[in-house]
Amino acid sequence: MHDVGVVGATGYLGGELLRLLADHPEVQVTQVVSRSHGGARLSDVLPFLADADDQVLLEDPGGLTGELVFLALPPGEALAVVPGLRARGIKVVDLGPDYRLQDPRIYQETYGRAHTDPEGLSEAVYGLPELNRERIRRSPLVANPGCYPTSALLALAPLARAGLLPGHVIIDAKSGSSGAGASPGPATHHSVAGASVNPYGGGHHRHLPEILQELAALGATPGVTFSPHLVPVVRGLLSSVYLPGVSPGQFDAWAPAFQGFYGKSPFVRVGPVPRLPWAVGSNRCLLALESSPPSGIVYSALDNLVKGGAGQAIQNANLMLGLPEDEGLPRGGLGP
Amino acid sequence: MHDVGVVGATGYLGGELLRLLADHPEVQVTQVVSRSHGGARLSDVLPFLADADDQVLLEDPGGLTGELVFLALPPGEALAVVPGLRARGIKVVDLGPDYRLQDPRIYQETYGRAHTDPEGLSEAVYGLPELNRERIRRSPLVANPGCYPTSALLALAPLARAGLLPGHVIIDAKSGSSGAGASPGPATHHSVAGASVNPYGGGHHRHLPEILQELAALGATPGVTFSPHLVPVVRGLLSSVYLPGVSPGQFDAWAPAFQGFYGKSPFVRVGPVPRLPWAVGSNRCLLALESSPPSGIVYSALDNLVKGGAGQAIQNANLMLGLPEDEGLPRGGLGP
Amino acid sequence: MHDVGVVGATGYLGGELLRLLADHPEVQVTQVVSRSHGGARLSDVLPFLADADDQVLLEDPGGLTGELVFLALPPGEALAVVPGLRARGIKVVDLGPDYRLQDPRIYQETYGRAHTDPEGLSEAVYGLPELNRERIRRSPLVANPGCYPTSALLALAPLARAGLLPGHVIIDAKSGSSGAGASPGPATHHSVAGASVNPYGGGHHRHLPEILQELAALGATPGVTFSPHLVPVVRGLLSSVYLPGVSPGQFDAWAPAFQGFYGKSPFVRVGPVPRLPWAVGSNRCLLALESSPPSGIVYSALDNLVKGGAGQAIQNANLMLGLPEDEGLPRGGLGP
Amino acid sequence: MHDVGVVGATGYLGGELLRLLADHPEVQVTQVVSRSHGGARLSDVLPFLADADDQVLLEDPGGLTGELVFLALPPGEALAVVPGLRARGIKVVDLGPDYRLQDPRIYQETYGRAHTDPEGLSEAVYGLPELNRERIRRSPLVANPGCYPTSALLALAPLARAGLLPGHVIIDAKSGSSGAGASPGPATHHSVAGASVNPYGGGHHRHLPEILQELAALGATPGVTFSPHLVPVVRGLLSSVYLPGVSPGQFDAWAPAFQGFYGKSPFVRVGPVPRLPWAVGSNRCLLALESSPPSGIVYSALDNLVKGGAGQAIQNANLMLGLPEDEGLPRGGLGP
Repeated sequence: MHDVGVVGATGYLGGELLRLLADHPEVQVTQVVSRSHGGARLSDVLPFLADADDQVLLEDPGGLTGELVFLALPPGEALAVVPGLRARGIKVVDLGPDYRLQDPRIYQETYGRAHTDPEGLSEAVYGLPELNRERIRRSPLVANPGCYPTSALLALAPLARAGLLPGHVIIDAKSGSSGAGASPGPATHHSVAGASVNPYGGGHHRHLPEILQELAALGATPGVTFSPHLVPVVRGLLSSVYLPGVSPGQFDAWAPAFQGFYGKSPFVRVGPVPRLPWAVGSNRCLLALESSPPSGIVYSALDNLVKGGAGQAIQNANLMLGLPEDEGLPRGGLGP
Repeated sequence: MHDVGVVGATGYLGGELLRLLADHPEVQVTQVVSRSHGGARLSDVLPFLADADDQVLLEDPGGLTGELVFLALPPGEALAVVPGLRARGIKVVDLGPDYRLQDPRIYQETYGRAHTDPEGLSEAVYGLPELNRERIRRSPLVANPGCYPTSALLALAPLARAGLLPGHVIIDAKSGSSGAGASPGPATHHSVAGASVNPYGGGHHRHLPEILQELAALGATPGVTFSPHLVPVVRGLLSSVYLPGVSPGQFDAWAPAFQGFYGKSPFVRVGPVPRLPWAVGSNRCLLALESSPPSGIVYSALDNLVKGGAGQAIQNANLMLGLPEDEGLPRGGLGP
Repeated sequence: MHDVGVVGATGYLGGELLRLLADHPEVQVTQVVSRSHGGARLSDVLPFLADADDQVLLEDPGGLTGELVFLALPPGEALAVVPGLRARGIKVVDLGPDYRLQDPRIYQETYGRAHTDPEGLSEAVYGLPELNRERIRRSPLVANPGCYPTSALLALAPLARAGLLPGHVIIDAKSGSSGAGASPGPATHHSVAGASVNPYGGGHHRHLPEILQELAALGATPGVTFSPHLVPVVRGLLSSVYLPGVSPGQFDAWAPAFQGFYGKSPFVRVGPVPRLPWAVGSNRCLLALESSPPSGIVYSALDNLVKGGAGQAIQNANLMLGLPEDEGLPRGGLGP
Repeated sequence: MHDVGVVGATGYLGGELLRLLADHPEVQVTQVVSRSHGGARLSDVLPFLADADDQVLLEDPGGLTGELVFLALPPGEALAVVPGLRARGIKVVDLGPDYRLQDPRIYQETYGRAHTDPEGLSEAVYGLPELNRERIRRSPLVANPGCYPTSALLALAPLARAGLLPGHVIIDAKSGSSGAGASPGPATHHSVAGASVNPYGGGHHRHLPEILQELAALGATPGVTFSPHLVPVVRGLLSSVYLPGVSPGQFDAWAPAFQGFYGKSPFVRVGPVPRLPWAVGSNRCLLALESSPPSGIVYSALDNLVKGGAGQAIQNANLMLGLPEDEGLPRGGLGP
């Protein structure tokens, strides 16, 4: 049994980590940290968790002692915590953005602050197991990607590696509201979001640089247009990825490329066009390939809090702790 | 054509007033006031309104000059505005709670502040046209009830007047999120409210005193248990009103009581058990009577922003201006 | 006052026609036909309609006598009704697909049946008023387009006419369930559709030929990829239209093209990125232009039952009857 | 490891059984029967299940050989299957209604058919573990209750046993659409149910007799008014149970009665007023007690497919197989 800690317990990703880890047979959460709710009982703050998992929240991550720590913090905050954890030999899965971008200048452009931990950055691995499985196994610091890049990269990576990507990629993403986090705001007010579809990208999105970074690592440098939309579901993300200028003949090479790329990945399935509930609740990403001349389309569905967040973080932790990749993770979706 | 003003344009009731009044053939909105958005264009603040109705928002209600003013303000704020309007001879429909409770002590208990306009209170009429139609016609100041009391009172009034109410009434109300207003908060965050049913009354609710007041005016003083629930729709309110201890024989007297009471009311229908969309978008309240021994049940459905808010305010204004009661008001619901 | 009839009253478009026409000041519905519910009272079949509009449904369209008839029938059925109506000098707005495609061979390919009314087809005009306003005014038979083509064509037409369309267009459409009609089926079962986003195009869609037809009439012949998605709202359609390979410099020509094209169109607004409720309930189509290099994007939002169906049919009828184009049609959307 | 079979795999309860059992450490599903889809692969019929659990569906339950079989069949069909299974010594958890009512005359009144297995009926135990835990452990045939009776009985049982129930009980239940099963129909069409609250009881409901039966077994015979409502969520059931005529003094006895009754029940929590997502996905029933003079209220929330269906069936099977009651069952809810 491996002892782990969770920092940032009261956000949606922190709560999801605690929910999933409660059923993990080889990992136990021994310390939970929340700056905003230190001293409170977990059962009072997150009443959806099982009573048996109750414990008192710590305020300060300085006293963490486990073998691995999950950080679920707002942008910038991990930079103040990771160096101390690493100095004490604790492995880290960071669910925030601070260690995802290898180039600190792009980090500064994207998040508006300087990166203060170059040492950590140099040892960090981008935590998409289907791309970087072996490097993650050996790494002490993994930067867990969020839901949009996970969804888009799993749709594009096999084509990027096979040299099948055209010069232009269009990602139309439809996300549930939990992707926007636990803080109420005008865009996620129920009366605004509950009977609507709201595009909100404005032509720019902070997750685009990491998509470009990982595609480049696979050898592809397409132009990418990314448009996120808020849809009235709580959980789930569907990306419809359009590749203009793909003939039916070119499309025939897609299926073998995907099958080869994901042959050993327990959480990726290439199959029929997915609906969100087939993925929601599970750690899976469900892909489908469709020829729609003059384009090819890849549909990509996942649960933004599981494969797009806390589940993937546990998948990474499993690799880092020498456990089976799928240990303790839900495999089937919620339903029809 | 009657000139009217709207104060508090940027809340949900204010916006709904402007939406509905734009199609009113006998009333034109000549002045719109918003303290928070004075100087802005209406089209920038409320982009769902038709472009042709655009105008610049005023910041100060002091310059209002029309024949009638609608006030859609938070609790307490109308007390500072009504005396000035009345002094200038302007009629007022107040959509807030400040003139609904005739007893200032109950107002203070319920809203935590003293009532500072006893003169206004003495001339105010409770604006439920189906109960107080003739008094509203003659009144210069009408206190428009909100969605919960409208829904409950229309279900109970015929039985109260006919002496058919038992000593105990249970109101289980299911409300859409727009009833909670335009300000984001934890309870109406989409991830909290979007896939849930949330009881939130805690045994107390500030609209109960006015329900009791109006039932007493009809001669009934039952004990009332009221439990509001938030359901994941944006518009609409369904109240299931249970009257324990009603035998099938006693129930037989209900239908005649309702038919008699609402014979001249264009917006109340007693018919089959309603679904919300039959009422949403219209100014109607749809009632159904059901015998479920040992109880009788009245179902009551309406659009909380129309018959439970802005539509009813216009219905009151029509009466106050000598127009037909249903002038300019939508009569049919949105659909199946 | 113009007398009109409605055939196919119990489908969603037929019901919406009756709901909207009830508030039209210059048109009265004197005859309503439903083969499946002939002899029933309208209030029993469509309880969301206002009581005052109640009438008995006719079973047979053979006795229709008004000045104009709206047909809301399944594919193929209008072919058996239109010739008789036209022979009696009655104008027709057909909300079904039978007179939309000018080439009968494409009709046969798309709908799997031969077109049996070439005479009608030769006088029919494609009923998108923003494209064919003057021809509609003079036409006795108008083929009203459905929600997907209306949404897509209003997004593309100004660019097509100005020669600004690239060779490839991608339409990602998100539709509410009412677009699928009133018949229950597996795809629109609430447990399947209620918490999901479901792509369902399969690379083909029967509305694509009319989009291509009308773009060609404007001088453009792009390749079009069209992917419809079902989203969990009842009303509303948002199309995100991607035009790959549009530089910021080329994008600068878009706004003038749209302003010029829609200068006299009361129901099209080019403005901020829309949310569905800004359009739902109204006859408007709300467009927004966004540069997202290397693409340009047009967002297009409307109510699939109003501007994408019954409202547009009334807009066409207004033109055919010599009335103002916007007479009796709702102009503002339902809300935030 | 215990070998079990599932009959009726393609309904919602059957699919949920397979989803949950896939993660059960002590039970393996070796045979799956579906009359409608015999010969098909599970992955084609229920694509939300994990790929690793794929198998070919059997058409005939006659060849079942495991230690225990779950039956998820429409009313009446279990009567033809149970005698054969019992004759071969196979234990049965029946998720349908055929063995719930001990009196065959009431079964005939309720379901309109004669009960043909009196022998089975005599050994069947009503499968609500919190009421009948010890009898279930010793029984070879358990009649698993559905969502409404589970929700209502868990709210009422402690008061019934303690003699604290008044003579009248009102149950206002709000159910998600999955409770209505997988067959599409008008009431669960998304356009009808997706933005509405629909009462549908009509004063009668087939689950009332078993509620009365189990309350009587606890010594209480109140009059019960039961009104089910369909709300626009897929999963989840909230019952608001009103007990008229409970003074604050009498209410004080409630909390001890509930704590005593559920002290050893791992899946029932008495705590703050619940929201559906706190229960959805888990096998829990969350109760809250509220004094609202002159009534007392019990709120009861659960997942209709888990604690109200498949999860409770597994809880029963655990008891029948000598396993810990909570083995393999999800304990925490999905979220906020």
